[in-house]
Amino acid sequence: MPILRLALAQTNPRLGDFSRNVLQIVNTAVEAFGKGADLVAFGEMSLTGYPIEDLATRPDFLRETRTHLEDIATQIAASGAGSIPVIVGFPHGPLDDHHANSGSPSAIAYNSAAVLQDGRIIGIYNKHHLPNYSVFDEYRIFRAGSDALVLHVAGADVALAICEDIWREGGPVAAIAEVKPSLLLILNGSPFEREKDEVRLPLVQRRAEQVNAPAVYLNLVGGQDDLVFDGGSFVTNASGKVLARAHQFVEQTLLVDIDVKDSTTNGSQVGPGVVVVEAGAGNPQRSTRAKVTAEIAPQLDINEQIWDALVLGMRDYVEKNGFRSVILGLSGGIDSAVCAALAVDAIGPDRVFGVSMPSNYSSDHSRSDADDLAERLGIDIRTEAIAPLVDPVETQLHLDGVAAENLQARIRGIILMGLSNAEGHLVLTTGNKTEIAVGYSTIYGDSVGGFAPIRDVPKTLVWELAKWRNEHARTKGLTPPIPENSITKPPSAELRPGQVDQDTLPEYDVLDAILDAYITERVGRDVIISRGFGAEMVDRVISLVDRAEWKRRQGAIGPKISEMAFGRDRRLPVTFTRN
Amino acid sequence: MPILRLALAQTNPRLGDFSRNVLQIVNTAVEAFGKGADLVAFGEMSLTGYPIEDLATRPDFLRETRTHLEDIATQIAASGAGSIPVIVGFPHGPLDDHHANSGSPSAIAYNSAAVLQDGRIIGIYNKHHLPNYSVFDEYRIFRAGSDALVLHVAGADVALAICEDIWREGGPVAAIAEVKPSLLLILNGSPFEREKDEVRLPLVQRRAEQVNAPAVYLNLVGGQDDLVFDGGSFVTNASGKVLARAHQFVEQTLLVDIDVKDSTTNGSQVGPGVVVVEAGAGNPQRSTRAKVTAEIAPQLDINEQIWDALVLGMRDYVEKNGFRSVILGLSGGIDSAVCAALAVDAIGPDRVFGVSMPSNYSSDHSRSDADDLAERLGIDIRTEAIAPLVDPVETQLHLDGVAAENLQARIRGIILMGLSNAEGHLVLTTGNKTEIAVGYSTIYGDSVGGFAPIRDVPKTLVWELAKWRNEHARTKGLTPPIPENSITKPPSAELRPGQVDQDTLPEYDVLDAILDAYITERVGRDVIISRGFGAEMVDRVISLVDRAEWKRRQGAIGPKISEMAFGRDRRLPVTFTRN
Repeated sequence: MPILRLALAQTNPRLGDFSRNVLQIVNTAVEAFGKGADLVAFGEMSLTGYPIEDLATRPDFLRETRTHLEDIATQIAASGAGSIPVIVGFPHGPLDDHHANSGSPSAIAYNSAAVLQDGRIIGIYNKHHLPNYSVFDEYRIFRAGSDALVLHVAGADVALAICEDIWREGGPVAAIAEVKPSLLLILNGSPFEREKDEVRLPLVQRRAEQVNAPAVYLNLVGGQDDLVFDGGSFVTNASGKVLARAHQFVEQTLLVDIDVKDSTTNGSQVGPGVVVVEAGAGNPQRSTRAKVTAEIAPQLDINEQIWDALVLGMRDYVEKNGFRSVILGLSGGIDSAVCAALAVDAIGPDRVFGVSMPSNYSSDHSRSDADDLAERLGIDIRTEAIAPLVDPVETQLHLDGVAAENLQARIRGIILMGLSNAEGHLVLTTGNKTEIAVGYSTIYGDSVGGFAPIRDVPKTLVWELAKWRNEHARTKGLTPPIPENSITKPPSAELRPGQVDQDTLPEYDVLDAILDAYITERVGRDVIISRGFGAEMVDRVISLVDRAEWKRRQGAIGPKISEMAFGRDRRLPVTFTRN
Repeated sequence: MPILRLALAQTNPRLGDFSRNVLQIVNTAVEAFGKGADLVAFGEMSLTGYPIEDLATRPDFLRETRTHLEDIATQIAASGAGSIPVIVGFPHGPLDDHHANSGSPSAIAYNSAAVLQDGRIIGIYNKHHLPNYSVFDEYRIFRAGSDALVLHVAGADVALAICEDIWREGGPVAAIAEVKPSLLLILNGSPFEREKDEVRLPLVQRRAEQVNAPAVYLNLVGGQDDLVFDGGSFVTNASGKVLARAHQFVEQTLLVDIDVKDSTTNGSQVGPGVVVVEAGAGNPQRSTRAKVTAEIAPQLDINEQIWDALVLGMRDYVEKNGFRSVILGLSGGIDSAVCAALAVDAIGPDRVFGVSMPSNYSSDHSRSDADDLAERLGIDIRTEAIAPLVDPVETQLHLDGVAAENLQARIRGIILMGLSNAEGHLVLTTGNKTEIAVGYSTIYGDSVGGFAPIRDVPKTLVWELAKWRNEHARTKGLTPPIPENSITKPPSAELRPGQVDQDTLPEYDVLDAILDAYITERVGRDVIISRGFGAEMVDRVISLVDRAEWKRRQGAIGPKISEMAFGRDRRLPVTFTRN
């Protein structure tokens, strides 16, 4: 039974920043070689970053990717570490312009893993199953592969798979099982979701049993646009026992020694549908190296996972887009308080700027709670009264009622965007998922901003996270960041005297339960009513959700008259930066 | 050789408005029966409207659709017209909640055509090929069918196909050809694109030759969100000669008599992969009816097609969303002038409201040209000076430079949104494709609004359309709607003294050529430079396009922590209205 030493690099690529990603891959591989690794692996699309969207359909981008991939192989070999295989995820496309603009389908690349060795690409595995649901649009931008790939290295057979390949029955895992591999190595670009962890581990355990070999689940980490890759890479033995686990939400290279079955291929081809790639004898230190004990990082509780995901998502959006600082309105309410606390955890108090924008209808506590928050967080806060700016507009346009309420929110938006333009801050939008779902916001008012930290957090969870974060501080003997009053007072938009959210909306626990059934479960009104909610309330909530769709698209609808319109065809990743 | 009389109903369904769509289908079918039709057909997804997006994944919506489909069959039969087959496009899903929230993939429905006869559904064809490029996301929301369907009616065999089925080689058309059908009937939901017409006809001609039978291309018509279905349904004989053509951009039922080959199936099953459905002897008037001469509508020139597509897109967005009127800023420039002219053509001058919002930097001609436009169009125009509203903000926040320029645009946005809230107008955003591509706009400023009439129209085409529209008026002896000065003067945002667009941007003909290469052709910088554009300019344009992506998404990015986040999973059609 050979022992394989794996270096599993859980990295946070920057989309489009090839020079940075190449440097990190080369350095990590060379360091792992020095530590006796027989094989180094990086996550799905680790060379480019995962959500490359329409870049996958651009021959120029694919050519550039290929050049950098070859450069990695060359650099590793030049550093003397070329004798072990290094596996890197990348979009694998045609290298000429011939396929550009070829009409339908526009998918010209594979989602692939390259095996680099001795300065060359010695093998390429193309992902078979292309997810096209939830946040995934891979079937739109990629072609599907057909062959399995087995790497013969250090007397063992390492079979490759990429993410979705193991989520489908009858995928390449079935073909792999027939080869009786020594190890199943799965590269992933798997975004965080509440409770996803409880799905991944049993799935990988089942695949390990299916191929009767240890399995490696290697994930990316980091925020990219609206996705947060949570890391948490792990290794199980053939019975599903966890042998190693990386931390969530941080970059880490996991070094692990695994006892594996001897190769059955011995580097020879075994038949159609499986490509065997010869990848040498492993690390020159194999005979002399001492065994390493792999880390098994503790698992975080669910609220800590969510908090950390939101913090990482914000930090990476800010950093990858090159912002020095963020700015947000502080109303004294729970949403802005949680956003500010997240921002401080993400980038530190010196880079977070609060603005209190009281109106004539603002309560005293809205100001005092905002000040209290800023003091607890140690962030800058300034006050910009909105009445002197609202009044001239209200008077000139003769606005009242809802129009006047919205005007207040829009003047606040103008203040934040003006300060952003003048001082260079990224504006944070503090709306939560519940209010976005039902359209309880002013378009171009409280919805302005470049990043929405709690856009996917329902209101009831906002409160829960606030309590968790305060408790977390208390257990460490630190000041709870969020004022107790912001958590306990009734939520209000304060756009007219005495207004509270529940004038207009059901109680939030009821509202969130209905939204969860309607949006997440996708069940209809009759089913929801049968669970004990009032018919009138259910109909009202459903109607609000349906009618708020245009607000969620921020009004950017216009007739399409060409093949390449914006909105779908031309959809670059937001944080993509050409270097 | 039997003669088949077809009634081809090119309808404009309202998404989600089942009662209206059902009524139209029933009335059209009954009327066609009275005119001696042997078969009545409606377009792809004609029962619901085409872009149902995530509704296709909701069992409750699919059940509701089925109920209405059965109701149509019942009503037609009750009217005495049940003996001929009526073909209706619809999403065909499971009728229980069992598949709801079943994880991946969430596609549970087929994109289908039902054959209704004698009060029942006698056959269902499921589309084979699901487009997943450009505006299409069908692979995301639908399952793929596998069998062909042939309808045996009035001694002829009518084979069905749906849209993309004929765009792929080796699709069901190959299986259909083996049956030697009398007719190929293709239901489409094919959105307008510049020059698409030149692709559709040769394709259908090729398919007619391939099956050696006449072919019917039946399309939807109407605007729905950002799609405009242009109609233009047509029939060719087996050699590809056009026998009938409907008008573009209007609802119409085309009645056409076609000589067709005798049935080879005689209603019996012919083997695996093809389902033969017996659909009776045709219309009872067959023996006595006089032959009809089918209409062959003339084809429109390309500028008229584009203009009409933009007009229809706007009209249907306004009407389907229940707006009484639209409002837009009139700057005296070409973009707002074209938008106003489109609006008047779409909904008439009484429902279009212009606002002139001069600043201290506005030229005299910006006011006079706006007034001239309003007079030519016969629309209401009011003036709201922005200086009294800009100054207090500029002073309080100490804004200057770009921040002060953006402030002016944002105050204009606030005025339009305030008037919208107060008076109920839909705000039109007047940005063109070129400026949206390079981000030459103020987010939450000139980009505010619910509908963007020229979002997909490059600047050079805006001018061309303006000239075309004026010439079109002149040929009819009418007043050209767009002031000559708005067409000829140099474009300017007028946010600082003497500013013109070309201070910041390349000449528009150059810019549009580079954008077309980069965005539509998807070629890279080297190819573009090789066409004779300067390297520095090409790099700058590419950089602008890449960096403007966040503006095109209007800043609505936030970390996702649940399976069902907004933005992708929860994407209802904007104009969907539950009844």
